[in-house]
Amino acid sequence: MREQEHIVKSFEEELEAISTQIAQMGGMAEAQLAAAIDCVTRRDIALAERTVLEDRRIDEMEHDIEEQTVRLIALRQPMALDLREAISAIKISADLERIGDLAKNIAKRSIIVIGDYETPARLMQGLARMGKLAQGQLKAVLDAYAGRNAEEALHVWRSDAEIDEMYNSIFRELLTYMMEDPRTIGACTHLLFIAKNIERIGDHATNVAETVSYLVTGEMLVDERPKSDQTTTTAISALRDTQ
Amino acid sequence: MREQEHIVKSFEEELEAISTQIAQMGGMAEAQLAAAIDCVTRRDIALAERTVLEDRRIDEMEHDIEEQTVRLIALRQPMALDLREAISAIKISADLERIGDLAKNIAKRSIIVIGDYETPARLMQGLARMGKLAQGQLKAVLDAYAGRNAEEALHVWRSDAEIDEMYNSIFRELLTYMMEDPRTIGACTHLLFIAKNIERIGDHATNVAETVSYLVTGEMLVDERPKSDQTTTTAISALRDTQ
Repeated sequence: MREQEHIVKSFEEELEAISTQIAQMGGMAEAQLAAAIDCVTRRDIALAERTVLEDRRIDEMEHDIEEQTVRLIALRQPMALDLREAISAIKISADLERIGDLAKNIAKRSIIVIGDYETPARLMQGLARMGKLAQGQLKAVLDAYAGRNAEEALHVWRSDAEIDEMYNSIFRELLTYMMEDPRTIGACTHLLFIAKNIERIGDHATNVAETVSYLVTGEMLVDERPKSDQTTTTAISALRDTQ
Repeated sequence: MREQEHIVKSFEEELEAISTQIAQMGGMAEAQLAAAIDCVTRRDIALAERTVLEDRRIDEMEHDIEEQTVRLIALRQPMALDLREAISAIKISADLERIGDLAKNIAKRSIIVIGDYETPARLMQGLARMGKLAQGQLKAVLDAYAGRNAEEALHVWRSDAEIDEMYNSIFRELLTYMMEDPRTIGACTHLLFIAKNIERIGDHATNVAETVSYLVTGEMLVDERPKSDQTTTTAISALRDTQ
């Protein structure tokens, strides 16, 4: 009996340790995203270089979490909620790793843009706002995970359209700058990918929201997530992006 | 004893059924990628519309495979290789789902481009070649998975740099077209994202290669994958992309 209790407690402890690591990894992804946005808006090359280097730590964390979780499943053979905890850990850490990658890519591109282009203030404000939105989504979904709160996760899942709308507006703005002054095409293309990366970070936050919802309820969200995309198959103008 | 044998056989059957579904899903992803490239190079709007609609089937397959695999882990509590099979099924189906999404996005963008721009033949040839490379990578990695062949998977993993190089060259070409004729900026931006999507499909094939290698050997590939990216932190020119 004692032995049994010991094993049960230790399993919970292991699961909790993984969950804590995900929270840490989430914190790192948040910090990397904030730094990446600062690289762009403050034109800070030293910060950009640090942000690129820092990404390796997030990659290592994903690797560790996956390895520990697979070992946990193999040794402990969890069922029901415990198994969902383990599967969710693998999925969430994969999304956080991708968010880290995208933040690194934003930092890399910011270095090119900084050296190449006096970016209009209005555009920088737009990117900063979009970055803040994505940070808010990431923070909210990490809170939802920490609290195992499906309601909060669903709220994040429903709010993704706002980032998409902002992306569409920045997309149009950037194309306008390029047409007005073709010398800016190189830099604006990188800014376009930066905006796209922020939008994709929002998508990954939405993925995490789906995983948290599945973790808590045991049901997967199967509906198409709400997309604020009016273009799709009947595009009147090329000056809008499509997701 | 009989009972035991029955359970063992049935577990293997279930695992094999999941593996077969992944092969089917892989075939669908290959077909969607081929169709998406045809949409762009043949300017076929009807095909593009079918390709967009068809993506839903790949999404459903991912959902089914994940559900079945989690149930299998819960009921059968597999260990070692069997557990790696199950975890790999979840990871590979997630990558195939993303490949399907990217193919859908290529098809959507092709509709905008077709209506908007007389694309230069040289550019179309480049995109077609890049598409063929990505198709080859996807086919090779699905074969590696079917044969549980780590060597073949490693070969795919190492070949990703070729797609990246081709992407860089198309990136430069597109920027040149935009600068020469700013009226093409809208359409060329979509072609840029189309090329980026093909490059990302190559990345997902590389992810699958990592998973196959892990499945067969039990070890994760931890090295940075070979990237053909000479720009990164010291960019002299904005006329090159960064990964």
